[in-house]
Amino acid sequence: MSATPSLDLPKYCQQTAEAAKAASYQLASLDTSVKNSWLIGSADALVAAAEQIMEANQRDLAAAPQYGLTSAAIDRLRLDTSRIGAIATGLREIAMLPDPVGEVLDGFTRPGGLQIQKKRVPLGVVFFIYESRPNVTADAAGICVKSGNAVILRGGKEAIHSSQAIVNILAETATQFGIPPTAVQLVGTTDRAAVGHFLGLHELIDVTIPRGGESLIRRVATEATMPVIKHYDGNCHVYVDEWADLSMAVDIIENSKCQRMGVCNACESLLIHAEVAEKVVPLISERLASHKVEIRADQRALAFLPDAVTATDEDWSAEYLGPTISLAIVDSVEQAAKHINQHGSHHTDAIITNNLRSANAFTTLVDSSAVMVNASTRFNDGGVFGLGAEIGISTDKFHARGPCGLRELTTYKYIVQGSGQIRQS
Amino acid sequence: MSATPSLDLPKYCQQTAEAAKAASYQLASLDTSVKNSWLIGSADALVAAAEQIMEANQRDLAAAPQYGLTSAAIDRLRLDTSRIGAIATGLREIAMLPDPVGEVLDGFTRPGGLQIQKKRVPLGVVFFIYESRPNVTADAAGICVKSGNAVILRGGKEAIHSSQAIVNILAETATQFGIPPTAVQLVGTTDRAAVGHFLGLHELIDVTIPRGGESLIRRVATEATMPVIKHYDGNCHVYVDEWADLSMAVDIIENSKCQRMGVCNACESLLIHAEVAEKVVPLISERLASHKVEIRADQRALAFLPDAVTATDEDWSAEYLGPTISLAIVDSVEQAAKHINQHGSHHTDAIITNNLRSANAFTTLVDSSAVMVNASTRFNDGGVFGLGAEIGISTDKFHARGPCGLRELTTYKYIVQGSGQIRQS
Repeated sequence: MSATPSLDLPKYCQQTAEAAKAASYQLASLDTSVKNSWLIGSADALVAAAEQIMEANQRDLAAAPQYGLTSAAIDRLRLDTSRIGAIATGLREIAMLPDPVGEVLDGFTRPGGLQIQKKRVPLGVVFFIYESRPNVTADAAGICVKSGNAVILRGGKEAIHSSQAIVNILAETATQFGIPPTAVQLVGTTDRAAVGHFLGLHELIDVTIPRGGESLIRRVATEATMPVIKHYDGNCHVYVDEWADLSMAVDIIENSKCQRMGVCNACESLLIHAEVAEKVVPLISERLASHKVEIRADQRALAFLPDAVTATDEDWSAEYLGPTISLAIVDSVEQAAKHINQHGSHHTDAIITNNLRSANAFTTLVDSSAVMVNASTRFNDGGVFGLGAEIGISTDKFHARGPCGLRELTTYKYIVQGSGQIRQS
Repeated sequence: MSATPSLDLPKYCQQTAEAAKAASYQLASLDTSVKNSWLIGSADALVAAAEQIMEANQRDLAAAPQYGLTSAAIDRLRLDTSRIGAIATGLREIAMLPDPVGEVLDGFTRPGGLQIQKKRVPLGVVFFIYESRPNVTADAAGICVKSGNAVILRGGKEAIHSSQAIVNILAETATQFGIPPTAVQLVGTTDRAAVGHFLGLHELIDVTIPRGGESLIRRVATEATMPVIKHYDGNCHVYVDEWADLSMAVDIIENSKCQRMGVCNACESLLIHAEVAEKVVPLISERLASHKVEIRADQRALAFLPDAVTATDEDWSAEYLGPTISLAIVDSVEQAAKHINQHGSHHTDAIITNNLRSANAFTTLVDSSAVMVNASTRFNDGGVFGLGAEIGISTDKFHARGPCGLRELTTYKYIVQGSGQIRQS
């Protein structure tokens, strides 16, 4: 389970990835009902093995102080029957989602009689790197296998015994349903060098998905030789238009910033149209003050916020993930969009307006994964969007943008059927 | 036009990319009719400026010997009124293709009343690196702008005067139609270091598309800090099944291998089912011999090809792009698929069979961008697939697979319309 001096790490990683690749070819042609039976069977098996999982979890909890976990982190690590029940429910929910594999995205017959289909197929092998939450282990495995992919799971070392217990049960259940048990593998060593080895195996691993702090994601993006779906934090904006319902604006700003400050779709910066600034800025300030949020304001906004801190250039791109927010005055929706495209992180941005032209200009010009009109930035989420389970929120534009569910773990292939056609020119 | 000692290269690249990014925000909201008017207007302007373009082309032709171009390469470089007419026709054809931008890919109303649309939008800025063919300059510019993207063109130095003349006309026409002229920019220096600078600008450039030799593509894939659509050559297979029409098999093999040997969808390897080997291998050998193609055969095939060269392990992954082909005997469609997935390049592979089970097994198991049943591998092509113009054929699975047309140069964003909704949990 943990690194042993005798482990040949490059060989171990190579063999793990080869096993995943071999499994992926079998997974690609599995009937949906088999995958769903595995999901539901795994849910039942996890509940039945709750004692065994909690025992493994005890070993993680006992080791937690040596990793210096905070009490909040230790709480997230703890499994009880209710939490194991929630993990099982998550798998049952994935079983209910439509299977993306096999969907015909396009199809036509060409002059000469070639029949062409563009068909959705799995990506192949997913290397998933994630934080120390044992529930994510089951969730990620469920999403990957349902979309026809094999997965190599690299969870945080603090949860390795819990994750291994869960993966053992998922793999045993797989065997029962004729699914290769190597469809779901947990990296069985906590050696950090293992990640580097996997990131070099682009012929075996089709995509890497890192979740965690920005430094981890940057390291993975730099080292990976295969595509990476990146999941950075967001510098999300709320823009209060000249034609906004100001009371709605204050409510949405409060919700976007304060409902959960540490998440990627929390608001970090406010842009206020000059025409309404005098009226709305004091209301916003008062509401945010009730949550102890400090405002860093530009020169023009300071006129309405005499006690606020002056914003520096760094504030416009800052992702505070805490009780601080920046605020600037703008003169038009175009100027707001320009500011957001320049300083934002292309994650989630909202406009508050009752004017259709402003709404259209904002949604067209702002280059972000989700653009909200009169709604909280907190709604950028796979569950809210009806995608069902998600494996992350992509901050890239390439391949997948925003919440990544089952479909985002697929690609397509062209299937061309002929009757002996050869090409003449 | 060419490198001058006084050029501040990093600054030049930064400014070029910034101008492209600024143009891309305008392009994203352009009406289709404006883009089409630009395409048709540019076609007319190119024809009208034929003399001027041919003059620039003369300068490239005069310099060709100093670059050591072959006579075939010099011929590809040469522009006359007929070729300029063909370039213009290419732009008019792009005008006739449907505009992918603005397509609503999905849309629904969620509980609570949020109205969500998933809408197709341009990627932003494309950095396109290509060989010395002036017609590609206009074609790539047309594809990028039609799909709402700004493009930075880095053509081969051997064609720089011709390309610059073409780009000048495209940019002048853009201004006439209210399109920013920096929507289409040619890198104005032949300094190789410019490519490296552009590859570092991931905040301004959304995707890089290199076309050319494998070493160029590998260099770009390694150095690029943004996503890359790779366009490697293909190690394409034809598998002759137990249930094949053998005469069709020989015709398709001849076409796949010999119609154009130097292209990425030419066949490089043959797999023959053991049951039909004795009958079909001599026929294939005879047909290929008429094109002077040498066969490298595995041990079992040598029984039917006494004079053939024995294949080495390297032959199974080789992309000859010339008059050589490898040939192996297999015992099942599954074994053929396994060989292809292990040694192939995931580009284009064909099965010849009249058996439905074999066809389904092959198309499901073979992990390639296009899988052909009873048709030549040469049909993997954007024009053949009805995509219209293509900017390359992706050998990746991520984002785009196979021919990359207008749609493959887009991404999507979620547009969420509410009426004051805030998130409760």
